[in-house]
Amino acid sequence: MSGEDAPAQQQNAEEQKQQQQETKTPAESPKTESKPDPPPTSASTEAAAAAADADTPAPAAEKAPEEDTFSYRALVLTGYGGYDKVKLQVKKGKPALKSGEVMVRVKMCGLNFADLMARQGLYDRLPSPPVTPGMECSGIIEAVGEDVTDRKVGDKVLVLNRSGLWQEVVVVATTHTFLMPEGMSFEEAAALPVNYITAYMMLFDFGHLRPNQSVLVHMAAGGVGIAATQLCKTVNDVTVFGTASASKHEVISQGGVTHPIDYRTRDYVEEIRKISPKGLDIVLDPLGGSDTHKGYNLLKPMGKLISYGAANMLAGQKKNLFAVAKTWYQQFSVHTLSLIQGNRSVCGFHLGYLDSESELIAQAMAVIMDLYKQGKIKPRIDSTYHLEQVGDAMRRMQERHNIGKIILTTEPMKEEEKKDEAKKDEEKKKDDKKKDDKKKDDKKKDEAKKEEKKEEKKKEETKKDDKKAEEKKEEVKKEEN
Amino acid sequence: MSGEDAPAQQQNAEEQKQQQQETKTPAESPKTESKPDPPPTSASTEAAAAAADADTPAPAAEKAPEEDTFSYRALVLTGYGGYDKVKLQVKKGKPALKSGEVMVRVKMCGLNFADLMARQGLYDRLPSPPVTPGMECSGIIEAVGEDVTDRKVGDKVLVLNRSGLWQEVVVVATTHTFLMPEGMSFEEAAALPVNYITAYMMLFDFGHLRPNQSVLVHMAAGGVGIAATQLCKTVNDVTVFGTASASKHEVISQGGVTHPIDYRTRDYVEEIRKISPKGLDIVLDPLGGSDTHKGYNLLKPMGKLISYGAANMLAGQKKNLFAVAKTWYQQFSVHTLSLIQGNRSVCGFHLGYLDSESELIAQAMAVIMDLYKQGKIKPRIDSTYHLEQVGDAMRRMQERHNIGKIILTTEPMKEEEKKDEAKKDEEKKKDDKKKDDKKKDDKKKDEAKKEEKKEEKKKEETKKDDKKAEEKKEEVKKEEN
Repeated sequence: MSGEDAPAQQQNAEEQKQQQQETKTPAESPKTESKPDPPPTSASTEAAAAAADADTPAPAAEKAPEEDTFSYRALVLTGYGGYDKVKLQVKKGKPALKSGEVMVRVKMCGLNFADLMARQGLYDRLPSPPVTPGMECSGIIEAVGEDVTDRKVGDKVLVLNRSGLWQEVVVVATTHTFLMPEGMSFEEAAALPVNYITAYMMLFDFGHLRPNQSVLVHMAAGGVGIAATQLCKTVNDVTVFGTASASKHEVISQGGVTHPIDYRTRDYVEEIRKISPKGLDIVLDPLGGSDTHKGYNLLKPMGKLISYGAANMLAGQKKNLFAVAKTWYQQFSVHTLSLIQGNRSVCGFHLGYLDSESELIAQAMAVIMDLYKQGKIKPRIDSTYHLEQVGDAMRRMQERHNIGKIILTTEPMKEEEKKDEAKKDEEKKKDDKKKDDKKKDDKKKDEAKKEEKKEEKKKEETKKDDKKAEEKKEEVKKEEN
Repeated sequence: MSGEDAPAQQQNAEEQKQQQQETKTPAESPKTESKPDPPPTSASTEAAAAAADADTPAPAAEKAPEEDTFSYRALVLTGYGGYDKVKLQVKKGKPALKSGEVMVRVKMCGLNFADLMARQGLYDRLPSPPVTPGMECSGIIEAVGEDVTDRKVGDKVLVLNRSGLWQEVVVVATTHTFLMPEGMSFEEAAALPVNYITAYMMLFDFGHLRPNQSVLVHMAAGGVGIAATQLCKTVNDVTVFGTASASKHEVISQGGVTHPIDYRTRDYVEEIRKISPKGLDIVLDPLGGSDTHKGYNLLKPMGKLISYGAANMLAGQKKNLFAVAKTWYQQFSVHTLSLIQGNRSVCGFHLGYLDSESELIAQAMAVIMDLYKQGKIKPRIDSTYHLEQVGDAMRRMQERHNIGKIILTTEPMKEEEKKDEAKKDEEKKKDDKKKDDKKKDDKKKDEAKKEEKKEEKKKEETKKDDKKAEEKKEEVKKEEN
């Protein structure tokens, strides 16, 4: 599919690995400890490839004293697993800038579902650990490489990249940066790229949304859900069905959802059929598995189902093989003859696989920025966490407590906050230990019960055997007689 | 899918059957011979359903003498099979008009691929035989039913319907008629609805065609092919790849195909990759089977494959079970995870399954009429046949000799033409007989050869057996020694 940039990807993954240093859990030591090491990655695969092609030498790194003292904090996924696998590290050495690249001092980063999948090893667009995740951030340009004419030091930008943005300093191709419009906060800027481009391209390119149509938005209180709802409202008389738990209904209704549906207590298919018996024009499906089948069956003639994730695969903080297998097994597959007879369309979308399509993305971003300036869209921030709290941030998203975007800020935690965090952390650990102990206890009890049952069964079988033996004896006796 | 109108459909099918009368091959007797029978079908399922719902009585048929003498010629599919299964009949009795319906005196009818499929029993939207096929025609309004305010006697219209239009008189709901713009010929009007609505909805609704994109049009010299090419040219800088046999390249190039490809002598995938290594934005696929796989693999990110037929199922004039099974077996099916990773869309389209969507169709038709008036599109007529010649017309289409639309005219053949036809027909029959005889001969020869081979094999086996027997004897002897 995008095999073209594979060599560049590998190169980057290796570069990233070279930079990885000692890993510490945030609670243990959010402070620095690191070795002087090679410069951080250019997170842009494209620019790297282009530079390699053109045989452009990297700008001669001036060996100023700053080079040795330059350091910055970075989140690093150290291996696949639970929330604690993303650790805060310090990287050292000033990144070298290639032609066409800029260095950005990061202010805020966006958290996405793909990051949760990636942590569990379910997202193949993140190079293998150790690696810095992060597909979007906002910040200020601190340096520009050769041949960069459209960006200057001091520009406020938002950044979209395949990975590597959850750190204080990033180096990317200018084509991956977009100037922030006046009045946009850094939080908003970090919340915007992934969710709004995803929603925009799904609704308007694949979906061809027009006035008077109807759209189903799952997880309507999530980042893409809120973006999609706002974008639907830019078209006249679009009806939005939005699923979310009841506690979020007020907020999503205010945001533009016409019919909020509590998927926990209601059958959303039934609810939609009651209101719209003919079905829907567009279904946005981030869930996968059996929900994709339901979405397909809800389509009107000329309807479009747009699948953009498999959130159903996420069950618990570590990879749940049962949930993965079930979602995979139930994953939707469709025959063209069925599509023809229904006049339907099934589309797949994931921004992570679109990173080499700079032009398409720039076009979408231009429209989105315009809508922002007109006040027609506005990212909703759910909460902001320090880099040290990335585990909590991920937990909030995975447990679906958020309404809107979860943001990571690079602003360091204050000392008091850290102490509080440490306490909380210990409590959490205790809690987790208690839970673990309880689980172990339960397991032991279960096993004990099983043993008991086995024993009983054995006894019964022995009894049966005894009975049979006696019966046989009887028979033998009879025969003897 | 469209189960809602099933009862109405059945009703229509039965009505149609009631009208079916004696069937004669055109060459034998293109003249009338028929029984007075119930009024012809209202070909509109919608209007029928609506009328039934509203319990509107059919307008009391005035029993004027005209009623008994009113008759008209109609093509009737008498059973599934070869070209001779569509016969010319005469229907008697003036059709009754329900509320919202109009009666049209038909001038010209369009021939479509679906009609070829239907004749072989491969198209489930045509009621079972005996039935009058035909999805589009043009003509003049001869009578209007109650509550019809937007049409009047004398209006020139083009008609789109699920079936039943290959006859001199049709009764349809007004929503299935569209006023012909000034300057449009009856041929053009009959050539326009199916091909242009199909091409329009595929390219602009599912395809979301934009400037600078690239499109693959298979069978680029066919009705949909030419319509699609013209519609592509209404958008700036669209590159059209068109497949057709070499003899048609000049015409399709003039019509707007940027890169004509002779699929008989070239691998079209290779040819396209040479010119457009990244692939295509839109693939229109009327073929099915392995070509759908090829089309899918040619898609760029955000590319759309639109499947709208299975022409590969057609091989020969009668149903070819091998071709059907092969096409079916190879028919494309896709998994959403593959769509997500490729950012692709797979759509299915068939106007025949969209007949209850009057509003969608009216919207598309309005744009198409506008483009016609602006001179941006113009149906290309390949040839015009009399109703009596429908077999030749179908053969021409099925054997892919046409460039553009094949039209049937209701204008009766002149006596001389009929004589000529009869002669031709006899010659054809002789030809067919010769072919058949040759086939039989070949078969006999083949069988004889097979027999010979069998004999040889038997002889060889006997020899082998003899040899084995001798060997055994030898062994026995050895053992004895």
